[in-house]
Amino acid sequence: MPAPESPLTVAHLGERAVVARIGARVPPAPAAVAVGIGDDAAVVQPDRGTLDVVTTDTLVEGVHFDRTFSTAADVGHKTLAANLSDLAAMGAEPRYALLALSLPASCPVADVDALVDALLALAAHHRTALVGGDVTASPGPLIVAVTAIGSVGRRRVLRRDAAAPGDIVYVSGAIGAASAGLAALRARPEAPRPAPGNPAEAAPGRDAGATPDAGAGLEACIERHRRPEPRVRLGTALGRNRAARACIDLSDGLADAVHRIAAASRAGVELDAEALPIDPAARSWFDAAGLDPIVAALDGGEDYELAFTSPPRFRGRLRHVRRQIRGLPITPIGVVTKEPGVRLRRGGKEEPLPGGYEHFAAAR
Amino acid sequence: MPAPESPLTVAHLGERAVVARIGARVPPAPAAVAVGIGDDAAVVQPDRGTLDVVTTDTLVEGVHFDRTFSTAADVGHKTLAANLSDLAAMGAEPRYALLALSLPASCPVADVDALVDALLALAAHHRTALVGGDVTASPGPLIVAVTAIGSVGRRRVLRRDAAAPGDIVYVSGAIGAASAGLAALRARPEAPRPAPGNPAEAAPGRDAGATPDAGAGLEACIERHRRPEPRVRLGTALGRNRAARACIDLSDGLADAVHRIAAASRAGVELDAEALPIDPAARSWFDAAGLDPIVAALDGGEDYELAFTSPPRFRGRLRHVRRQIRGLPITPIGVVTKEPGVRLRRGGKEEPLPGGYEHFAAAR
Repeated sequence: MPAPESPLTVAHLGERAVVARIGARVPPAPAAVAVGIGDDAAVVQPDRGTLDVVTTDTLVEGVHFDRTFSTAADVGHKTLAANLSDLAAMGAEPRYALLALSLPASCPVADVDALVDALLALAAHHRTALVGGDVTASPGPLIVAVTAIGSVGRRRVLRRDAAAPGDIVYVSGAIGAASAGLAALRARPEAPRPAPGNPAEAAPGRDAGATPDAGAGLEACIERHRRPEPRVRLGTALGRNRAARACIDLSDGLADAVHRIAAASRAGVELDAEALPIDPAARSWFDAAGLDPIVAALDGGEDYELAFTSPPRFRGRLRHVRRQIRGLPITPIGVVTKEPGVRLRRGGKEEPLPGGYEHFAAAR
Repeated sequence: MPAPESPLTVAHLGERAVVARIGARVPPAPAAVAVGIGDDAAVVQPDRGTLDVVTTDTLVEGVHFDRTFSTAADVGHKTLAANLSDLAAMGAEPRYALLALSLPASCPVADVDALVDALLALAAHHRTALVGGDVTASPGPLIVAVTAIGSVGRRRVLRRDAAAPGDIVYVSGAIGAASAGLAALRARPEAPRPAPGNPAEAAPGRDAGATPDAGAGLEACIERHRRPEPRVRLGTALGRNRAARACIDLSDGLADAVHRIAAASRAGVELDAEALPIDPAARSWFDAAGLDPIVAALDGGEDYELAFTSPPRFRGRLRHVRRQIRGLPITPIGVVTKEPGVRLRRGGKEEPLPGGYEHFAAAR
């Protein structure tokens, strides 16, 4: 999106200057970083007595974000948030991150700065040091890939395959907000239509009816889509207090998350539709758009909440966790069953739970 | 490049099935992997008493590789090789890798299989476990990003900023092979021309004259471009024997590498043109193409050799290293000087050394 006045682009500046510019924005590394940005690789001190936790997540323009709806800063924040969310879902404390950028030649340098600054702001908030990365040209979309490294105590790892029949299923925060926010953005009359012939743009929700009134709640949903908050404090508190058996983050929606926990744990899950903590503004938006709010909220991705299972006898541990997470709600939404499969109990009846999100599906 | 008979593509299969397919190809994880592929993040045991070394490298179709000249298997091999080369340049032993794939919907599933298999073959050769990653759709090029994690003893880290005046500069193997190989591929009459209007294709070397005779040596150059061999054994031997002061890999060519060592070490380097171990077939190719072989070899990227500096008194340590690297040549090519800047001594005269590689430059 070059502005009319032709801003300075990465093509003007060159790869090396972009790297130097990023390096100059990074605050001094903590003592545990033996070698930071600027060498062939970063060298870091592992946490004594803990395990390393590593994850990588890539956000692709036209698939995971649309520059019409998200600023470069949003994308920088969100890519790191997705990674920190994965660490949180393992019970891990984040420590380091690597940033790999594939930049279109026309990308304004100001956008790179904003992307990096927003990423660094979230990193500082979670005491995560940016220790390295890679900058390449992209002949296509802007691609932002982050690898995050954290640490977790040997017996504090939260896996997704450890759910057991009888466990209660919990979810943090509210669900459906991010997908309602994105759908609302797409339905806004002033929003430019995606270019025809770009199949990646034809993602679900795009044509979700007319624009209902956008109040403050819906603005919060939009903010949630743009700048999700990874539940780092909850994840580490669940691990430290050994308050959860299985845990997973909601990057691809609650339905997908529960399916994955059930499959990995060779168990089933029965969810209570009435118990689901659907964001109120999202619920109104789904209602007004003629969608089933429960299905839409279960299916909506990018909430970046955590879902976890915990046996009833862990109630005391969970109380400790609640005290440490500063008012973030934790809601029981169902139970783990011996019988495999995932079912939704709704008005006394059971129905199969719809599946997860599939980016390739859009291109079929 | 869908074949005429319409092979099975990633769009047919879907993201989740692609992930499952990759997971099924990965051999059982070593004991140090507490949680491997299939959870929110991987959990690995740090090596006792060592530091973690982390690096990430991305190969982008149309920038770093061209599917006309490189198979999917080549690209899988090469992306991991680039990362292992970075670890080697730090003196680190590779341990784990993460693979992030951004796949065009039209990408044949057989290509994904081949890419992953080649990556896994190189990983197995270097005892590196694939522990996780990410699969996303790409509305543009195929993008392969690998993050590699290794370990190195606290006092065995090879930095690029540790060169000191009086050090001898060495390079492993031969230089110029990979770039001669790529230029030869591009000059082949049967090779399709890159699509017009794709600036990323207009990379240096493409129009490097007519095709000289391609003998076995040139075929080896082409193989070197497609399947570079990371100098893992040399890097770890240099670290273990404390035989090098500064070290860097030659991903962007020897000229670039020497410039970076000099700048990081606040020193200068004087290279001896006659001493450079230019690959003989590459030299013939450059000669026949009307290029200055010395400049072309210094400037050519992707050799993935190591350059390092070592004071004369480390000669004994270097002898130990030579014994451990199974015949890989190590050639002294210059000295580190107090005077800053990088100079090339050639036929009794000194000239400034040309700079490094710049991918964005192609798009200017």
